[in-house]
Amino acid sequence: MSDTPPSDLVTVGIANRVATLTLNNAAKRNALSAALLDALVAGLKSLDTQEVRVVILRAAAGLPVWSAGHDIKELPRGHEDPLGYSDPLEKALRAIRELPVPVIAMVHGTVWGGAFDLVLSCDMIVADETASFAITPVNLGLPYNTTGLMHFIGRLPMNLIKEMFFTAAPLKAADAEHWHIVNHLVPSAELEGFTRTLAEGMTAKAPLAVAVIKEQLRVLSDYQPIAAQVFERIQDMRRQVYESADFQEGIAAFLEKRKAVFRGT
Amino acid sequence: MSDTPPSDLVTVGIANRVATLTLNNAAKRNALSAALLDALVAGLKSLDTQEVRVVILRAAAGLPVWSAGHDIKELPRGHEDPLGYSDPLEKALRAIRELPVPVIAMVHGTVWGGAFDLVLSCDMIVADETASFAITPVNLGLPYNTTGLMHFIGRLPMNLIKEMFFTAAPLKAADAEHWHIVNHLVPSAELEGFTRTLAEGMTAKAPLAVAVIKEQLRVLSDYQPIAAQVFERIQDMRRQVYESADFQEGIAAFLEKRKAVFRGT
Amino acid sequence: MSDTPPSDLVTVGIANRVATLTLNNAAKRNALSAALLDALVAGLKSLDTQEVRVVILRAAAGLPVWSAGHDIKELPRGHEDPLGYSDPLEKALRAIRELPVPVIAMVHGTVWGGAFDLVLSCDMIVADETASFAITPVNLGLPYNTTGLMHFIGRLPMNLIKEMFFTAAPLKAADAEHWHIVNHLVPSAELEGFTRTLAEGMTAKAPLAVAVIKEQLRVLSDYQPIAAQVFERIQDMRRQVYESADFQEGIAAFLEKRKAVFRGT
Amino acid sequence: MSDTPPSDLVTVGIANRVATLTLNNAAKRNALSAALLDALVAGLKSLDTQEVRVVILRAAAGLPVWSAGHDIKELPRGHEDPLGYSDPLEKALRAIRELPVPVIAMVHGTVWGGAFDLVLSCDMIVADETASFAITPVNLGLPYNTTGLMHFIGRLPMNLIKEMFFTAAPLKAADAEHWHIVNHLVPSAELEGFTRTLAEGMTAKAPLAVAVIKEQLRVLSDYQPIAAQVFERIQDMRRQVYESADFQEGIAAFLEKRKAVFRGT
Amino acid sequence: MSDTPPSDLVTVGIANRVATLTLNNAAKRNALSAALLDALVAGLKSLDTQEVRVVILRAAAGLPVWSAGHDIKELPRGHEDPLGYSDPLEKALRAIRELPVPVIAMVHGTVWGGAFDLVLSCDMIVADETASFAITPVNLGLPYNTTGLMHFIGRLPMNLIKEMFFTAAPLKAADAEHWHIVNHLVPSAELEGFTRTLAEGMTAKAPLAVAVIKEQLRVLSDYQPIAAQVFERIQDMRRQVYESADFQEGIAAFLEKRKAVFRGT
Amino acid sequence: MSDTPPSDLVTVGIANRVATLTLNNAAKRNALSAALLDALVAGLKSLDTQEVRVVILRAAAGLPVWSAGHDIKELPRGHEDPLGYSDPLEKALRAIRELPVPVIAMVHGTVWGGAFDLVLSCDMIVADETASFAITPVNLGLPYNTTGLMHFIGRLPMNLIKEMFFTAAPLKAADAEHWHIVNHLVPSAELEGFTRTLAEGMTAKAPLAVAVIKEQLRVLSDYQPIAAQVFERIQDMRRQVYESADFQEGIAAFLEKRKAVFRGT
Ligand code: NI
Ligand code: NI
Ligand code: NI
Repeated sequence: MSDTPPSDLVTVGIANRVATLTLNNAAKRNALSAALLDALVAGLKSLDTQEVRVVILRAAAGLPVWSAGHDIKELPRGHEDPLGYSDPLEKALRAIRELPVPVIAMVHGTVWGGAFDLVLSCDMIVADETASFAITPVNLGLPYNTTGLMHFIGRLPMNLIKEMFFTAAPLKAADAEHWHIVNHLVPSAELEGFTRTLAEGMTAKAPLAVAVIKEQLRVLSDYQPIAAQVFERIQDMRRQVYESADFQEGIAAFLEKRKAVFRGT
Repeated sequence: MSDTPPSDLVTVGIANRVATLTLNNAAKRNALSAALLDALVAGLKSLDTQEVRVVILRAAAGLPVWSAGHDIKELPRGHEDPLGYSDPLEKALRAIRELPVPVIAMVHGTVWGGAFDLVLSCDMIVADETASFAITPVNLGLPYNTTGLMHFIGRLPMNLIKEMFFTAAPLKAADAEHWHIVNHLVPSAELEGFTRTLAEGMTAKAPLAVAVIKEQLRVLSDYQPIAAQVFERIQDMRRQVYESADFQEGIAAFLEKRKAVFRGT
Repeated sequence: MSDTPPSDLVTVGIANRVATLTLNNAAKRNALSAALLDALVAGLKSLDTQEVRVVILRAAAGLPVWSAGHDIKELPRGHEDPLGYSDPLEKALRAIRELPVPVIAMVHGTVWGGAFDLVLSCDMIVADETASFAITPVNLGLPYNTTGLMHFIGRLPMNLIKEMFFTAAPLKAADAEHWHIVNHLVPSAELEGFTRTLAEGMTAKAPLAVAVIKEQLRVLSDYQPIAAQVFERIQDMRRQVYESADFQEGIAAFLEKRKAVFRGT
Repeated sequence: MSDTPPSDLVTVGIANRVATLTLNNAAKRNALSAALLDALVAGLKSLDTQEVRVVILRAAAGLPVWSAGHDIKELPRGHEDPLGYSDPLEKALRAIRELPVPVIAMVHGTVWGGAFDLVLSCDMIVADETASFAITPVNLGLPYNTTGLMHFIGRLPMNLIKEMFFTAAPLKAADAEHWHIVNHLVPSAELEGFTRTLAEGMTAKAPLAVAVIKEQLRVLSDYQPIAAQVFERIQDMRRQVYESADFQEGIAAFLEKRKAVFRGT
Repeated sequence: MSDTPPSDLVTVGIANRVATLTLNNAAKRNALSAALLDALVAGLKSLDTQEVRVVILRAAAGLPVWSAGHDIKELPRGHEDPLGYSDPLEKALRAIRELPVPVIAMVHGTVWGGAFDLVLSCDMIVADETASFAITPVNLGLPYNTTGLMHFIGRLPMNLIKEMFFTAAPLKAADAEHWHIVNHLVPSAELEGFTRTLAEGMTAKAPLAVAVIKEQLRVLSDYQPIAAQVFERIQDMRRQVYESADFQEGIAAFLEKRKAVFRGT
Repeated sequence: MSDTPPSDLVTVGIANRVATLTLNNAAKRNALSAALLDALVAGLKSLDTQEVRVVILRAAAGLPVWSAGHDIKELPRGHEDPLGYSDPLEKALRAIRELPVPVIAMVHGTVWGGAFDLVLSCDMIVADETASFAITPVNLGLPYNTTGLMHFIGRLPMNLIKEMFFTAAPLKAADAEHWHIVNHLVPSAELEGFTRTLAEGMTAKAPLAVAVIKEQLRVLSDYQPIAAQVFERIQDMRRQVYESADFQEGIAAFLEKRKAVFRGT
């Protein structure tokens, strides 16, 4: 398995004012390594948002896995918050959420863990019948971060959020449509065409109005206040989790490709 | 095209403790002019909410357009917030949201722009198969107001809100049912009967309990706090939009019935 | 009709790290009396959450009513808030919401009033085709409490919340699926098997991560701030409702099994 | 002791755009009875705030007591919140806080209990050396309301607030100056002249700017949000206090002019 | 009166890790023109905060006016918010508040209007006996902005804030000490020496800890949330003020050096 | 230097319904070690708050240091938040803040670092002329926690908070009186008598009212909400500080009794 050169991890193509960013690390199933996420952020920042009016985020054609999620090998193990504000995934999520143009996630194949957070942070999702979605921190013993959970709240019904987080089971395409995860479920053969048409339709709209509406919705979603006291208590609970033996076990089991045995300590 | 006399723009009928308010300006496709909105507010304020227990808001029978939305000719052009707190539409939305009895929007035909905000501000929506819904500020380059966006949040999933705002495309009746915009989708022939039955069922319920529950839900939705700092930044972004050349172009194109060409400035 | 002994009102069984709590007062249709709710809280507190990893909350097999809701005879009548912070139902809702393991409501039969708040406070709901759900304070003239309403917001779309609260009409199983009240709708014959499989799947997951994620979601839902000024105004409105003649009438009518006549005073 | 006629309880005089409202019930030491407070609100509402630019609130000349505070005989005793949102004092405090012109409390003599909340709700306080201030709910066993406490926070340092509330001891004029309760401490002989000069100086200022600044400061002080969950818990604690035996004892002792004996139940 | 060249409006000197920024436009009494404020921001941004550990902000030696406040000639007159988020003064206030090192305002002479907001936005104030402070929007009919008012709240007692805003009268040095506006009041002859010693003492402290503490205090002060609904209402009131005839009169009178006559319209 | 036995670190005496807790570890200058803080919490929890109505917190008689603050040797060095929610000092601060009776800090001698947070968390402070107060995290390079900073906000003016935090210099007794840190400054010889009299005066007040008022003030101070997004950013900044070389240097220098040299990295 040879490494993809950094410059090829995320490719950028532009046509008709629509930029397409393609996750392109088949060898690692598009795992969200620091290298790939930095490339994604660089790709987003390279766009001239006066010219580009819409972004499509996709995986390279033909991959059965859209993205495998966090690159587990890179997670800090104990003592340090594994989902810190400055970590590469968090930066990438903010880059998408703060981009002043709409971002459509075009999903063919399976979406795992942090990659689900990534597609939910896009403004819309178009998927085909091969798509599935899972959020897997309880497979690792990983305490999810509060702003990460806020990306799900208001976007999905609370009982679905809980089922997905507590079971870590993948949700199939049809169910993802029922639960409104996807804006549109279309046949595989039509996925690219449908997504392009949707995107190009938006390029004719007033870009300043689009940008300020997107920013207002972001602020209203992301800046819901909670008491500092409550936050520090939660942070303390999270620290106990990422310093637990179970978290070590979860990562070890993942890397050894065996089932983790959790003891609650 | 003759003008409808002010007193006829919104008619009020009461039967079995249900008041029906009818938007009645076919010539202007029920555009939300100051005159029509003032008549609507006057109609709502004329109700004796001890006697009237439910309100139905509808368009006059037979119209293919439920309402065309903002009366674009009346929008301020530049320098002034086009969606100010004291503007007629904002007053009408508050009048509905603060009315101490339930309001059902009965929708036959197409609902555009500010009229979508109006029906979403009703407590329930019953629609037939001719109904469609669109929210169109990006066709004009109009920066939507923050409380306006809050009417959508918590009521619709965030990815639908974004698709509707960023595409300005109408959502058809069946999709409106899938996305929970409408409480009930019923055949055209049954629309009035179904809506009346739903309304009359509520007239027997304890009105004080209904009123306080509606008010609590309003407060919990409308009074979500954000930092003043964030708000002033947003307000500044919005000002740049309504003072932009694009906003002038959007309104001009609309009035000249041509496609706007936006430059992002 | 003989009384169920306190110790039998809620039974607890544990197998494969899944605890099943069964509401077991057929004679009173599992009305949420102080005795039953105290037994429920005692049952929850008796669990060793190191050993038990998931809880199923169900009614005794064979009952057509999952729970009839508040025990109306026990409600304070006037002068006192009927839904106070320390009342038995509120304590039970908090016990479920604060339990550090997932709770699945398994629903066969009809769910009324406060019992709907109870199942919505569980993390997931699995139901069969006999299930229905109603929230009935407007039948009594009862002002619902603000935190109670917050249990619905974010969990269900606002227009459904309003229709259910303002009509007090039961929502059938298929509609409950459409509106995402239930996570899964399964045939009666498969209800227990399906629910057990779902529960047992979660027992293998990292319990500390599950616990902190559940707690974060609770905090983000339950601790949304509103201004004290607004709250005191609401509290005052609620007091006027529970001190109204209509509330007396609502309770009297219920106990006399007749239709209430509300006057709005 | 003869009763002051309602129309004379609060007198209103206007000169040079300054209105002077005088509490004028010497017989009852200006106790804040419903009658006096209603007269105060009526006096405030009678002002034409286009003409009147400043208000002075004072006690009738020569009284050693500025106001004795709540009229204890009128307080509800048990079962009902003694400081409800619609109670006369709360209405009067809001009338002052919401008045679009500055209100100066001119204080000669002692200020007790709710009257301290009243003068703190004025925009400025000018006092002479006879002035003193006390806040006395712990003498009665009265649970103060949350918005009432918010009137003190941000206005006085927290440690002074606590000492005053927990000791119920009067603070003398010089100490009131040290702790910034009063804007100006002036000799008795100069009190009226000084206050008039201060007031008249403000009448030349831009009244719309004054009004919106006062309203913004009110909103920033009064609308600080707290979680509904926290509020309901506090409300429940307060209910236990106003339903306690100690509250009965506190009121009884006051009326019998003896020292209360509190048991903490 | 000759214009100061832009490069000389604000001078920067650095010694012993303390940067001194000097407002240097004697001809215009250091009025806060866009040019001077841009120079101030540029000066702040030019600092290497690894090397510089403290900033002193002062007026050029010998001036009797520290700063005359807003350059009234530059204020927008009507239709536009005169205190917008992107206006030069707002940018300068944020530059000071967000600078990761302490800023001491060293005040000799009179401080007017927006310049008072500027010195309050510094972390500390050291002044001599010639210092005085006034906040003057009601002399102009100018509606102050909400974040501007928040700079005063928590920093000064509310009754002083109101007296200063409603009278626009200067507060003398000794009173400024009594009300805690200044950290230290020192004789003129010692002002520079005292301030330098205070500043140099801070250069030995841990700079990362200083920076994060300053940032936390800023966030806790500046990000207090209020409801969007409340904010939009306030913004609307403010618009009515800056579009009023009185605001035109206020500015005209100022420029004509006569007393304004306000009509409340 | 022999160790004080744990049971003697904090002694408890009760007389006339006033409990006196005495910090009693002269050998270590009452440093806030885990052992001493646990003893303090144990002492507070041992009180029967039905019987005890007021608490006095003091240092053993005759000590020149009231408390030296954090026991630096016990601080985690890097990788772990040195001021976590569950750390002994945080638990002690909450124990005092949540105690349902007033706590008076009686201060003779110098108060350092975390001990200043401790006395500010008491409801009142009475001090004599030997008292001084300093807050010293910038001597160590320690990032203070957000709830800790909130204990200062609302209690002290912001410019004093900044001067104390950024200089780490002790504030003398007379200045502490000027800035309202102390409720009363009394001569050494009268300190005990004055404090006892103040305390005993409160024992006659209605304890339930005292308790709920204290709790409301705590909630209004401690539960001010900020956005989770802002909090996570702050937490990330703080992590960078406690993982910095400067923090290692700060602690090392303290233990080696030499002056730290900070490099800002
Ligand atoms: Ni569906
Ligand atoms: Ni749905
Ligand atoms: Ni002072």
